[in-house]
Amino acid sequence: MDVTRRQTLVGATALAAAPLVGVASSTAMAMTDKTTSIDKQAPSFYRYNVGQIIVTVVSDGANTFPLQEGFVVNTPVENVRKALTDAFRPADTMTISFGPLAIKTGGKLVVVDTGMGEGAFASSEGAVGQFNTNFAAAGFDPKDVSTVVISHFHGDHINGLLRADGSPAFPNAEILVPEVEWKFFMSDEEMARANTERMKTVFGNARRVFDQGLKRKITPYAWDKEVVPGLQSISAPGHTPGHTSFVLSSGSDKVFIQSDVTNDPDLFVRNPGWHAGFDQDPELAEKTRRRVYEMLVSERMKVQGFHYPFPGVGHIEKDGAGYRLVPVQWSPNL
Amino acid sequence: MDVTRRQTLVGATALAAAPLVGVASSTAMAMTDKTTSIDKQAPSFYRYNVGQIIVTVVSDGANTFPLQEGFVVNTPVENVRKALTDAFRPADTMTISFGPLAIKTGGKLVVVDTGMGEGAFASSEGAVGQFNTNFAAAGFDPKDVSTVVISHFHGDHINGLLRADGSPAFPNAEILVPEVEWKFFMSDEEMARANTERMKTVFGNARRVFDQGLKRKITPYAWDKEVVPGLQSISAPGHTPGHTSFVLSSGSDKVFIQSDVTNDPDLFVRNPGWHAGFDQDPELAEKTRRRVYEMLVSERMKVQGFHYPFPGVGHIEKDGAGYRLVPVQWSPNL
Repeated sequence: MDVTRRQTLVGATALAAAPLVGVASSTAMAMTDKTTSIDKQAPSFYRYNVGQIIVTVVSDGANTFPLQEGFVVNTPVENVRKALTDAFRPADTMTISFGPLAIKTGGKLVVVDTGMGEGAFASSEGAVGQFNTNFAAAGFDPKDVSTVVISHFHGDHINGLLRADGSPAFPNAEILVPEVEWKFFMSDEEMARANTERMKTVFGNARRVFDQGLKRKITPYAWDKEVVPGLQSISAPGHTPGHTSFVLSSGSDKVFIQSDVTNDPDLFVRNPGWHAGFDQDPELAEKTRRRVYEMLVSERMKVQGFHYPFPGVGHIEKDGAGYRLVPVQWSPNL
Repeated sequence: MDVTRRQTLVGATALAAAPLVGVASSTAMAMTDKTTSIDKQAPSFYRYNVGQIIVTVVSDGANTFPLQEGFVVNTPVENVRKALTDAFRPADTMTISFGPLAIKTGGKLVVVDTGMGEGAFASSEGAVGQFNTNFAAAGFDPKDVSTVVISHFHGDHINGLLRADGSPAFPNAEILVPEVEWKFFMSDEEMARANTERMKTVFGNARRVFDQGLKRKITPYAWDKEVVPGLQSISAPGHTPGHTSFVLSSGSDKVFIQSDVTNDPDLFVRNPGWHAGFDQDPELAEKTRRRVYEMLVSERMKVQGFHYPFPGVGHIEKDGAGYRLVPVQWSPNL
């Protein structure tokens, strides 16, 4: 990757992290038949059963930003625009969704990943940073969370571990983090090797959350272990060194919680060879992606994606040289 | 259609009308980590803008019943099971969703179709008959509805016009019904010609709602007219003689409200030549279906389907000999 492309990438990912509000919706706000008391979107949480376990998808919102060259690092932006158009989406903007989970299993309330948080990364417009609101709408209290399981150390997954004032958001929870991820991002040698703005930011943010915020009160977990009842950690490196997926199972029912094996499905499920700028080791991320998606197809396993559009649960079918996400039918009844 | 098949069909459609609760969810209820205070599904309403107009999809729930021979009248049930399996759905049951709309346009609150109602057709288990609950969750009051627009006279569209006690559910609303539908179902000659249990039930139910309940206080509307600001009625006969679709438009933005041009998309969008037992004139319904879906593809127009899974809005792409529904991304922000 040459320097110009890398710089473009930094710009694109910085935009992706910023909580921009879509221009279209802002404009519409001023001119419609709306009244503020009624015309809010529905609370974006969704429940489903996995055997005896209840999963609640708790949206942290969705982020819309201008699509730029370099958002997909190994294909021209024209191809990305075409993929968006083919999916009946605007060709000039990207919208990325964020979907933490709350899982009731074995008498515990477990949160998997936490969203952008209510601090600096949360928009005053409310486009992202919605986890707390939707968590409350779903009837949950952060004080009742006994365990938080983190898939990897990017800000949209860990920032919600802290309140805006820097205190722990889940005061009674044990915080479980991937052992490999912990070793990498807490290594001063690795941090010293970071040579891009993006990697420096990821390191700095991880230190902010885990050192300053949580005073390193975490519990590392290994791969291929049952980290909480029914939830097994699965090695899925590439997006980050310690990036982890999970299989949640109860009886014969299961769902693959992919975390960030792909980002947006219309781009990266359809084109598994495309590399998102968010992937730290793109080749390893692609290898992981192809392995996971072949497994999802052959086992016809349900999959939950952190960046799939809410509610983010479906199945994967082969489609041409890539795959396609088939969302589950929304059930108005649990 | 021979008599045996017709009888089977009556059985299947009777089952479809009955508010059965899925066995799986009932079984799960007794044994999970649930508490009744928290573990309810999210309220199933969803808002989106069409130009300056706000559409709120208000789910009436979803109905699950055993799949039987004759549910699709012109293909063996094995083919239907395969279509369901291909869509990663159970092969032995059908689930049909119901999605009335609330539209704020021109300073009015307009409801399009009303769901199964809270009376005899609503399940005490709450699987269907959820319109009132979700309408309230969306911040609406039935007393504020100025107009109800009915697409056709099947029970899942008109029963919600009445409360359980038989009084009007929208006491201050003008009730707009398709002129062709009104003439057909209120004709004593046509009713005398009804020679199946199903058709006798449809006639009887229409009389119950419009004669006994509403004392014929309705306003007929013609096709190709703007029935309320931004909402144009579109001729779409076959499902019933007066079955009506709509185009809702504001500025350059529009959505095609198909009503029942297809029932379940995994079956009838994928296989436009399949005939649902609900279609009164299957050949005319298929002709309408193919005309509408070719238009949706060529114009890339957004489509809202009453029986599409909630929230029931997407676009149509060609796929093999049929079509495929591509759901819109859920936006957590309006």
